[in-house]
Amino acid sequence: MKNYDVIIIGGGPSGIITGVTGIKQNPEKSFLMIKGEEKELVPCGIPYVFHDLDDISQNAMGPKPFIDAGGEVLIDYVRKIDTKTKILSTEKGIDFHFDKLVFATGSVPVIPTFINGYDLEGVEYILKKYKYIETLKAKTDKAKNIIVIGGGFIGVEVAEQLAKYSDKKVSLVEMEKFCLYYAFSEDMAARADEVIRATNINLFTSNAVKQILGEKGHVKAVLLDDGTEIIADLVIASIGYKPNSNLARYCGLALDDNSAIDVDRYMRTGIKDIFAVGDCSSAIGFITGRSDSVMLASTATAEARILGYNLYHINLLRNFQGIISIFSTEINNIAFASAGAIEQTAHNANISYIVGKFEDVDRHPGTLPGTSKLFIKLIVSPKNGTIIGGEICGGKSTGELINIIGLAIQKRVTIYELISFQIGTHPLLTTAPTKYVLIKAAENAIAQMNKA
Amino acid sequence: MKNYDVIIIGGGPSGIITGVTGIKQNPEKSFLMIKGEEKELVPCGIPYVFHDLDDISQNAMGPKPFIDAGGEVLIDYVRKIDTKTKILSTEKGIDFHFDKLVFATGSVPVIPTFINGYDLEGVEYILKKYKYIETLKAKTDKAKNIIVIGGGFIGVEVAEQLAKYSDKKVSLVEMEKFCLYYAFSEDMAARADEVIRATNINLFTSNAVKQILGEKGHVKAVLLDDGTEIIADLVIASIGYKPNSNLARYCGLALDDNSAIDVDRYMRTGIKDIFAVGDCSSAIGFITGRSDSVMLASTATAEARILGYNLYHINLLRNFQGIISIFSTEINNIAFASAGAIEQTAHNANISYIVGKFEDVDRHPGTLPGTSKLFIKLIVSPKNGTIIGGEICGGKSTGELINIIGLAIQKRVTIYELISFQIGTHPLLTTAPTKYVLIKAAENAIAQMNKA
Repeated sequence: MKNYDVIIIGGGPSGIITGVTGIKQNPEKSFLMIKGEEKELVPCGIPYVFHDLDDISQNAMGPKPFIDAGGEVLIDYVRKIDTKTKILSTEKGIDFHFDKLVFATGSVPVIPTFINGYDLEGVEYILKKYKYIETLKAKTDKAKNIIVIGGGFIGVEVAEQLAKYSDKKVSLVEMEKFCLYYAFSEDMAARADEVIRATNINLFTSNAVKQILGEKGHVKAVLLDDGTEIIADLVIASIGYKPNSNLARYCGLALDDNSAIDVDRYMRTGIKDIFAVGDCSSAIGFITGRSDSVMLASTATAEARILGYNLYHINLLRNFQGIISIFSTEINNIAFASAGAIEQTAHNANISYIVGKFEDVDRHPGTLPGTSKLFIKLIVSPKNGTIIGGEICGGKSTGELINIIGLAIQKRVTIYELISFQIGTHPLLTTAPTKYVLIKAAENAIAQMNKA
Repeated sequence: MKNYDVIIIGGGPSGIITGVTGIKQNPEKSFLMIKGEEKELVPCGIPYVFHDLDDISQNAMGPKPFIDAGGEVLIDYVRKIDTKTKILSTEKGIDFHFDKLVFATGSVPVIPTFINGYDLEGVEYILKKYKYIETLKAKTDKAKNIIVIGGGFIGVEVAEQLAKYSDKKVSLVEMEKFCLYYAFSEDMAARADEVIRATNINLFTSNAVKQILGEKGHVKAVLLDDGTEIIADLVIASIGYKPNSNLARYCGLALDDNSAIDVDRYMRTGIKDIFAVGDCSSAIGFITGRSDSVMLASTATAEARILGYNLYHINLLRNFQGIISIFSTEINNIAFASAGAIEQTAHNANISYIVGKFEDVDRHPGTLPGTSKLFIKLIVSPKNGTIIGGEICGGKSTGELINIIGLAIQKRVTIYELISFQIGTHPLLTTAPTKYVLIKAAENAIAQMNKA
């Protein structure tokens, strides 16, 4: 039986970052990573395999950083864990003894078993597996009529990419009033839908899939709630992900209501020396203070760094403060991003809020070539002015602008501080100093505070 | 004699923002702005008048936001101020009584009177005046051999714009080892110089102008320290700006060593009810704790918001914390930005520091179209890990990425906090979550802390 100080199950972003950070802190310890496939995919890059990237291999992510740091990798599956004797057994029949065990098993797509016809040939998912996506890419290449079910980030991005092929008819079906409704409040989500409709995507909202229709065992059409029938030779169901926590459940770890492995703020499970990190682990919302099931590689890596530093001793007196949920995407060259509590989140969690808004362009003057419109919202606590969320729609700078709001939320910056913060501006890179969007949105919020 | 509650001298960014913010806080007060020209220029947009903008009118900035807020504007010059009776007289011979007076008189170019030939015809400056720049633009259109003296931001940007005309020979002369040496440490400044040299600009560094040579009163060449003689039909001297503080001095206000009007952290001069804001006023460095002569519209507007809120009473318990100096620019589509203390600043102010570095691409995977290289440096206090500065070179996202560092400096974020901050990432917008540049630079700094 082999012996390792630390065994990490899973080689996605959280597994790799836990490993690399953990090894740096504990160079004298032995680290093993057990993962199912040699090659993995950069999770957020998967939609771009379908068009923008020349080849799927460009989106490959291997365990190289972990191996370079000094870790060992085994391509295998864990089948059994005895948490008392600290022995795990793999599918290939190897037994390992560990001192610390990390679940970084990620998430798996939700299969829509509740939709009749979900099991027809030609109904596919966005599995985060290299070979599967490679095969799916070949199928999309051949398909002429593709229906994407689910207008979340992955669904929208996959549909946007596929719609770039002029010979394909791509439909996107979302049951909520708007796509991306989990991440954006109504006015911003409506803008995103406008952008989606301006592409070749045939978008259906407030409309669910009633049935997937087949012929000789293969999908041929999709029937919507309102009676619309859309022909299809390929259906991609992208209705969400759930924690990959069966193994953890099987070996006695407690799960939360979302089937995520219960962990504390240092990623410790209820069993000593066993940790869970990333999509498979539980978390609470930084603002809402209650269970949050958001799965983001950026959140997973934040957790993984905390775990990596604190695996043996609490070295970094900074535990995981709860999920901020910073989303960003780009549809047809227009970026959308949100951070923290949006209006629905605040409303649903019974959090009082006011909204500061501002709209401008992302260069100054706006007549400069390459200028994009920029629309920003700050969600603010009405008693003390603390920034609790934000949403942005704009050009390329949106991706980092949302991270300013993210940092502001995490440092509990108020709008009163924000309006006098010094910022850097440049004609070709940002809005004008006299009307820098974040400051103007904060001023707009202050005007409402004064009235309130 | 007319009477106003508040009179603001100057209509640049600091004058307008002081006025607009002040009116919002004191809608019952009367506000007058006295400015020399109806039309002004967006200061940072001036270089782009020479090429990227179709017409100078696109870079115009008027007092409209101030007038819309309820302020009145007089096109005139202030000639005399009696601070005891609170009466000022204008060039047109009008007398005004004020309750509060704000100097927002900005800055003027330093004229290189120490260079022989500075007064020849064909030697021009980047004055922030509409008609002057309009005329200068016409002169650059005709000129074939243009020499820009001074490789600061304005000099580099003007040279970069002029060099886009294939029929012009543009030379840039900088006496320091590198251009932009005030804002970037050696390795980053060297990169900027590389980018400058890749344009059509003929760049001379570590070389000063010894003499401007003329013929019949008109410039014909420039002689450098090393003996090089460059022919020229137009010379643009851009060797810096100085506070426009003569009027203030004349009416008895104290100036600092840089000729800036001495103010406290609420922008109050030594005389009751008289304020100064923006380029014409003194400031200390947020990190260095001592006098800083940086002039930036973004800093000026931050001061102006503080003054606008606090003009009558200290309403906003947030005074000006000192200058961070957040610079950004773009040369030949590559952005450069810095914030806070760079290496020279720290060294000169006897501040201990370590530098965390990281280099990557600004999208993930880096094979996506439109990807730019990204290089980042964090300047960090070695005792507690507080971030005191940063430098970035990269693509469009650089403009807001530097503002994340700016916020981190102002909120005194440490590298230990930064590494576990949640960030938003997206393939088309940012670096990968597993190696987000700011976090990786922080990790790199931590590795040095551990050694130290």
